[in-house]
Amino acid sequence: MTNKYKVAVVMGSDSDFPILKKCIKILKEFSVETEVHVISAHRTPSRAESLAKNAQAEGIGVIIAAAGKAAHLAGVLAANTIVPVIGLPIHSSTLDGLDALLSTVQMPKGVPVATVAINGAENAALLAVQILSLAQPELKVKLQEYKDKMAQEVAEKDMMIKEEVKQI
Amino acid sequence: MTNKYKVAVVMGSDSDFPILKKCIKILKEFSVETEVHVISAHRTPSRAESLAKNAQAEGIGVIIAAAGKAAHLAGVLAANTIVPVIGLPIHSSTLDGLDALLSTVQMPKGVPVATVAINGAENAALLAVQILSLAQPELKVKLQEYKDKMAQEVAEKDMMIKEEVKQI
Amino acid sequence: MTNKYKVAVVMGSDSDFPILKKCIKILKEFSVETEVHVISAHRTPSRAESLAKNAQAEGIGVIIAAAGKAAHLAGVLAANTIVPVIGLPIHSSTLDGLDALLSTVQMPKGVPVATVAINGAENAALLAVQILSLAQPELKVKLQEYKDKMAQEVAEKDMMIKEEVKQI
Amino acid sequence: MTNKYKVAVVMGSDSDFPILKKCIKILKEFSVETEVHVISAHRTPSRAESLAKNAQAEGIGVIIAAAGKAAHLAGVLAANTIVPVIGLPIHSSTLDGLDALLSTVQMPKGVPVATVAINGAENAALLAVQILSLAQPELKVKLQEYKDKMAQEVAEKDMMIKEEVKQI
Amino acid sequence: MTNKYKVAVVMGSDSDFPILKKCIKILKEFSVETEVHVISAHRTPSRAESLAKNAQAEGIGVIIAAAGKAAHLAGVLAANTIVPVIGLPIHSSTLDGLDALLSTVQMPKGVPVATVAINGAENAALLAVQILSLAQPELKVKLQEYKDKMAQEVAEKDMMIKEEVKQI
Amino acid sequence: MTNKYKVAVVMGSDSDFPILKKCIKILKEFSVETEVHVISAHRTPSRAESLAKNAQAEGIGVIIAAAGKAAHLAGVLAANTIVPVIGLPIHSSTLDGLDALLSTVQMPKGVPVATVAINGAENAALLAVQILSLAQPELKVKLQEYKDKMAQEVAEKDMMIKEEVKQI
Amino acid sequence: MTNKYKVAVVMGSDSDFPILKKCIKILKEFSVETEVHVISAHRTPSRAESLAKNAQAEGIGVIIAAAGKAAHLAGVLAANTIVPVIGLPIHSSTLDGLDALLSTVQMPKGVPVATVAINGAENAALLAVQILSLAQPELKVKLQEYKDKMAQEVAEKDMMIKEEVKQI
Amino acid sequence: MTNKYKVAVVMGSDSDFPILKKCIKILKEFSVETEVHVISAHRTPSRAESLAKNAQAEGIGVIIAAAGKAAHLAGVLAANTIVPVIGLPIHSSTLDGLDALLSTVQMPKGVPVATVAINGAENAALLAVQILSLAQPELKVKLQEYKDKMAQEVAEKDMMIKEEVKQI
Repeated sequence: MTNKYKVAVVMGSDSDFPILKKCIKILKEFSVETEVHVISAHRTPSRAESLAKNAQAEGIGVIIAAAGKAAHLAGVLAANTIVPVIGLPIHSSTLDGLDALLSTVQMPKGVPVATVAINGAENAALLAVQILSLAQPELKVKLQEYKDKMAQEVAEKDMMIKEEVKQI
Repeated sequence: MTNKYKVAVVMGSDSDFPILKKCIKILKEFSVETEVHVISAHRTPSRAESLAKNAQAEGIGVIIAAAGKAAHLAGVLAANTIVPVIGLPIHSSTLDGLDALLSTVQMPKGVPVATVAINGAENAALLAVQILSLAQPELKVKLQEYKDKMAQEVAEKDMMIKEEVKQI
Repeated sequence: MTNKYKVAVVMGSDSDFPILKKCIKILKEFSVETEVHVISAHRTPSRAESLAKNAQAEGIGVIIAAAGKAAHLAGVLAANTIVPVIGLPIHSSTLDGLDALLSTVQMPKGVPVATVAINGAENAALLAVQILSLAQPELKVKLQEYKDKMAQEVAEKDMMIKEEVKQI
Repeated sequence: MTNKYKVAVVMGSDSDFPILKKCIKILKEFSVETEVHVISAHRTPSRAESLAKNAQAEGIGVIIAAAGKAAHLAGVLAANTIVPVIGLPIHSSTLDGLDALLSTVQMPKGVPVATVAINGAENAALLAVQILSLAQPELKVKLQEYKDKMAQEVAEKDMMIKEEVKQI
Repeated sequence: MTNKYKVAVVMGSDSDFPILKKCIKILKEFSVETEVHVISAHRTPSRAESLAKNAQAEGIGVIIAAAGKAAHLAGVLAANTIVPVIGLPIHSSTLDGLDALLSTVQMPKGVPVATVAINGAENAALLAVQILSLAQPELKVKLQEYKDKMAQEVAEKDMMIKEEVKQI
Repeated sequence: MTNKYKVAVVMGSDSDFPILKKCIKILKEFSVETEVHVISAHRTPSRAESLAKNAQAEGIGVIIAAAGKAAHLAGVLAANTIVPVIGLPIHSSTLDGLDALLSTVQMPKGVPVATVAINGAENAALLAVQILSLAQPELKVKLQEYKDKMAQEVAEKDMMIKEEVKQI
Repeated sequence: MTNKYKVAVVMGSDSDFPILKKCIKILKEFSVETEVHVISAHRTPSRAESLAKNAQAEGIGVIIAAAGKAAHLAGVLAANTIVPVIGLPIHSSTLDGLDALLSTVQMPKGVPVATVAINGAENAALLAVQILSLAQPELKVKLQEYKDKMAQEVAEKDMMIKEEVKQI
Repeated sequence: MTNKYKVAVVMGSDSDFPILKKCIKILKEFSVETEVHVISAHRTPSRAESLAKNAQAEGIGVIIAAAGKAAHLAGVLAANTIVPVIGLPIHSSTLDGLDALLSTVQMPKGVPVATVAINGAENAALLAVQILSLAQPELKVKLQEYKDKMAQEVAEKDMMIKEEVKQI
């Protein structure tokens, strides 16, 4: 049996959208129902709280939260739900993303955030699909296909580069 | 309906066990079936590979991988499975855990690792339970109880400290 | 005229109390009315929110928020009030306090946190008194006395060390 | 009753002016009387000292000090006054602002600097207004309006992005 | 007597090729037989494993492994062979190469990776030639010539700059 | 045929000896002829130079150079020889070994240093043996045995921990 | 009486010349006799050694050594002379200059390098002049004039910015 | 001819004295007249200013300034004198000395500080003596003797370790 869940993609600022697009596209590729929000942990804290509190009731299975600088968004959402929250640290103009990474990953005991690489939007989506696949086994087939396709693409790049090397 | 999954807890070295204990205890608290392995990505690579490759077939729903220094374990496991992998960076004697954190979280496109805080063993377990709860809804109740209990404990500490403050 | 305000000292965990004591003592030295809370941004988010939302109405003039690791407490409070929030990053077992510092200070546009040094509990208190002194001019005299006393202490240390140097 | 204070905005170099403009504009929006200075802690130390020493007498309620690299300006001013000093670390060509941040925030016991994010010019202004609002309650209304407007803007961005997502 | 070995140059992504070219050219200058592969430790783990396991039998004397971010490639190869592995950390868009450096160099006890500078493609090649020269003494002459030529080039730059200085 | 080479182990200070012991022991285990020196790049530069210049003539196949802080020793030796130099950064009392690591690994174009992990004394030895094995094939057998033994030890730890887990 | 000394400006690579120009110009402004060299600690170690060893005899009073990455140049020169050596760390393409800074400043006991800011070419020159002024008192007058002129320039910028502020 | 200068050793806090002792002892070994002060840039700014302003007139040839955290002391002194200032960053309880190092070394254009290693008290003294030696040539002989003695000590350690190695 399958329990169909939605994924909520939340970004702290609309300026994060170009990076998030890559995440949303992958979710669509996997035919995962996705809702997208711009919610700031600091400028719209009550909307963050209500999204998180209602997540379970609304059938959201995973929340992806993207934010930069002192990136509290993922943590604030995780504080208000038991739905798994994926934290996506966004690189901003200073400190090379280190501030967002540490603010997202170094969560205190009791409230985990599943953190992916700085600007790792595709991986946030793939991790969400992997998580959903526990309840929606049909996603497992697609994930394996995706993995196989990636391997195939690397193999093609390998042949391409081997050709280029001959020119050196 | 419920799909019962196991959690595999893998540590790169037996010296990580004191930290991992806290993780294993929480999994037991949630009555999650747990298997524990010492597998080094570098010293026993084929065992790492086979664990990951068989994970799905063996009913493993989440893998928790703990390692220090150039912590490749989570990434190596994730490369060989579509089961979600939680990376737990372990603090070692130099660089204050930063090496393990970056080696675990900065995964390239296509192979996510759900990274938690350095030495964040409890959170690795809780994240695993949150993920399993998508397929095992009975865990949701327990997670909410755990969350409520934590809040209660903080409230008790609050009263205790308020008493102590009077002595200042 | 004087507007008397209270200071709220909030710590994310009772384990921060030994450091916070130094802060509370200075506030008492300045006869500033002080209330102390243990509130976790992540484990008790609704209590954090309500403290911040009611701060102004309850006569709180400054909030001091101390937390370690991914220290969201100050930011979460600042999101819910216009009362100035002082962030005190607490050093924990990994990353030497850098995670708490960046999580506290790197706040996005619109929601400032007045951050002091890692573990700088005394300075959090003194900054609070400086801020209150705008509305309570009698505090200005005390601040100047405190500053003069510090200078005097350094001068005494100077003489003491000059004696010790003679022994070398 | 209201005690009207001025804000002094001090920058260590005229090259910091493009960033400071955002700070000055917000202070004007709040109708806060603002004076602006270029004063280098290292090249014009006596002017820094005299500005700080006279601040209180001249009705300055908050000093905002912006500087890059080994950013001593805020600390030097704070050493010479009991007026609250906001430190604004400026990003320069090397080390990504980390030098300015640490030089500003890690003040020793006794002399606090209220540090905001690297290049966080708007937040420096908002923090100054929050501090002034303790003595000038009319600013509290404006701060709440500003906060509400920010939330409104995020909500608008949210709707805008939701439209864009439909195109993906 | 001479034991002729090949060098295998492996890159984790074809996007690393522009940097690797400099490495490959130097190996050609030294007439070292070189094979080039695009193999991802994470997307094509079994190809990484088989390359490493067969390296010795195929007459490979040194493996150069270039990767960015959580750069596991060199470590994964080293785990599967006793052939010396040179790790070349590649600078990517965040964290300035620090993630790749630490992921490559901080290998645990038992499985060394000979790490060179971030983006240090030429040095990876020269180190490979130095290693091969133990078994192929004719390379020693060429290495000394290369070293002498470098010194000569610096001497020429010295004269050139001395001319330019006269214009100041 | 076999070309027998010696390994020179050089440490910048006798205080590094406790760490270097682990390196020397492994070299002895592999029956590699080893000479040990205390030579400071900064306090005894001419001895460093002459060791490096004579290395090739004296039958040294690999130099292991261990130093802390601004660790120039490996680079200074590499500048004066074409023999491969392994750099072993030593952790000292400040900056957690980062200074030694960067000073050792970030070598400019033309003069490589094969850098291992901070305090990674065993790996320095194993890398030296791997390099020597190109010219001394009998070492290859021993390296493979060492690798197999390590895997065996991890397997034993695995069983041991599995027993301990039952007690939890 | 005056002891006239020369300054030797040494750069590790001709690519550092654009930055060094600012240093050389200031030395010329102070009429300090200056010689300029391109000498690599790693590619031309014997020229580095002989420059340092002859420095005192050739009337060199201060050496300025500029280098990037694992910047050993200043340390290598200091190892071979008792003439004060000023280290100027140069920012290169990775790690934002941190590698050069740590490699230059973290010198072990016994061999100091007087380090200035990353890319701080002007300060290297001014420090050299300050040092020379101990033996050439006529430079003291010029240094004071330079300091006064800087203060004057800041004062002019102050007036200029005050005008610009009126436009906001 | 000789111009005899004094050295002023200034520490920001008496807690730095144990480290400074090593500095003062070396200055005494070289028979350099030394005065020692505890002066805080932040708690006693006017004393810092007057010491710096009078330094030249009082025959001070070099100032050594030691401070931790946001270490402004050296910069504040340098701002008020043309006498060369040596900055000695002191390691304190957080951030491993990085804050003190960056606050000391990253001085803006026009006001150099000659920075030595974190806690590098001996090197601060030796650098001071090297600087003084330009005007007091008799110090050059002593410096060379000191350098020779250091080399001799390393040679003795070399022999001692060679003996110990035989026991392994």
